[in-house]
Amino acid sequence: MKILIIGASGTIGSQIVKALATAHEVIKANHSSGDVQIDITNTASIHSVFESIGKVDAIVCAAGNIAFNAFSELSREEWDLGINSRLMGQVNLTQIGSKYLHDGGSITLTSGIIADYPIAYGASAATLNGAIEHFAKAVSVELPNNIRINVVSPTVVTESLDTYGDYFPGFNSINAEDLAKYYVRSVLGVETGQTFKAFAGN
Amino acid sequence: MKILIIGASGTIGSQIVKALATAHEVIKANHSSGDVQIDITNTASIHSVFESIGKVDAIVCAAGNIAFNAFSELSREEWDLGINSRLMGQVNLTQIGSKYLHDGGSITLTSGIIADYPIAYGASAATLNGAIEHFAKAVSVELPNNIRINVVSPTVVTESLDTYGDYFPGFNSINAEDLAKYYVRSVLGVETGQTFKAFAGN
Repeated sequence: MKILIIGASGTIGSQIVKALATAHEVIKANHSSGDVQIDITNTASIHSVFESIGKVDAIVCAAGNIAFNAFSELSREEWDLGINSRLMGQVNLTQIGSKYLHDGGSITLTSGIIADYPIAYGASAATLNGAIEHFAKAVSVELPNNIRINVVSPTVVTESLDTYGDYFPGFNSINAEDLAKYYVRSVLGVETGQTFKAFAGN
Repeated sequence: MKILIIGASGTIGSQIVKALATAHEVIKANHSSGDVQIDITNTASIHSVFESIGKVDAIVCAAGNIAFNAFSELSREEWDLGINSRLMGQVNLTQIGSKYLHDGGSITLTSGIIADYPIAYGASAATLNGAIEHFAKAVSVELPNNIRINVVSPTVVTESLDTYGDYFPGFNSINAEDLAKYYVRSVLGVETGQTFKAFAGN
C-alpha cells in the first residue's frame, strides 16, 4: 500500500510512520521537511503534492493547528487559525485527496479529546475538533470509489505531557505508539465515517 | 424577562416569539425588519444592537445560513457562508452578547439534525451544526455570571416541508410550535451546555 502521512515528523506522525513503514510504502510529508512538503491551509500546495506523488492508497493527516485562549479573549484571527488549518485544511485535503485515491482507499483525519471534554483555553479546539468529527461522518456517505474516511481523536499524548500536561489536569494520557494503532486500524480496516476515540478511561 | 430573539420573523422564530411574548418582553430582531435589525456575520452590527437595547435576560438565535451542495462541488466561498454565519455568527453573538446579559441569563443557539444524520448536499451543514454543538458544550464552563448556553437541533420543520421535504426523505418533521418549546426550555430552564435534539423518533 502507498500511504501519504502528513505531519510525519511529529510526535504522533512519527509513530504512525513506524507502525506502517515496514509493510508499506510510506511517503512522509511535513510543512518543511520529509519526502514532500505540504501546507494543508493552501489548496495549491495540496494539489502540487498529489501531482508530484500520484495516486495513493491512503492519506493520513496528523497535522492541523488551532489557537488556545480564553473564550472571552479569542479573536477572529485566532479562530481563523483553526478554521483554515484544523478544519478547512483537513476538509480541503479530503476534497482534493479523494481524487488521488485508488478505489477502496482511505482518508484518516485528526480531531482531539477536547471535542468531548472541555479544558481551559479549549473553546476553539472543542468547536473545530467536533466539526471534523461531524464532517467525516457526513462525507463518508458521499465519497466515491469505496473510499473510506475516519477520524482519530487523541487524548493528550504521554510524550507531550511536559508541554501540554498542565492543560489536561487529571486526564489519562496515551503514548504515541499506542495511539498510532488507531490510525493503522483506520488505514487497514474496513470502517468508515467513524471517530476512533483514543481515550478509553477518560 | 427581557428576551432578544434573532430570526424572529422566520418559521421557527415566529413561534418562539409566540411562546414567550405573553409573559415576557420580547425584542424581535431580523436582518431587515423587526424591532431591531441585526446581521450576525458582522460584529459591529451585533455591538450596535446591544448598545441600542441594553442588557437582556436571554438571547435566542434562530438564524444562521449554510450552503448546500455536493461535497465534491463545495467551494471555499460556500463553506465560508456557513463559517461566517451559522458558526462564527453564533460564536460572535455569544462572545459579545454574554457581556450584555444579566446574571443568570441565557443564550440559545440553533444547529440541526444534519449534524447527526447525513442528507444529500449536507456536508457543510453537518460540519458546522456539529461545530456549534461542541462549541456550546465547551463554552458553557467559561461563561461568567452564571450565564447558561444551549443549542436546539431541529429536524425539518413541518411548515417547511414544501421547500425542504425532498432533502429529508422519510425523516419525521416537527411543527414549529412544538419546536419552540425546546427554546422555551433553554430560556426558562436550568440546563447548560446541552444540545436539545428536537427529533425524538428519527
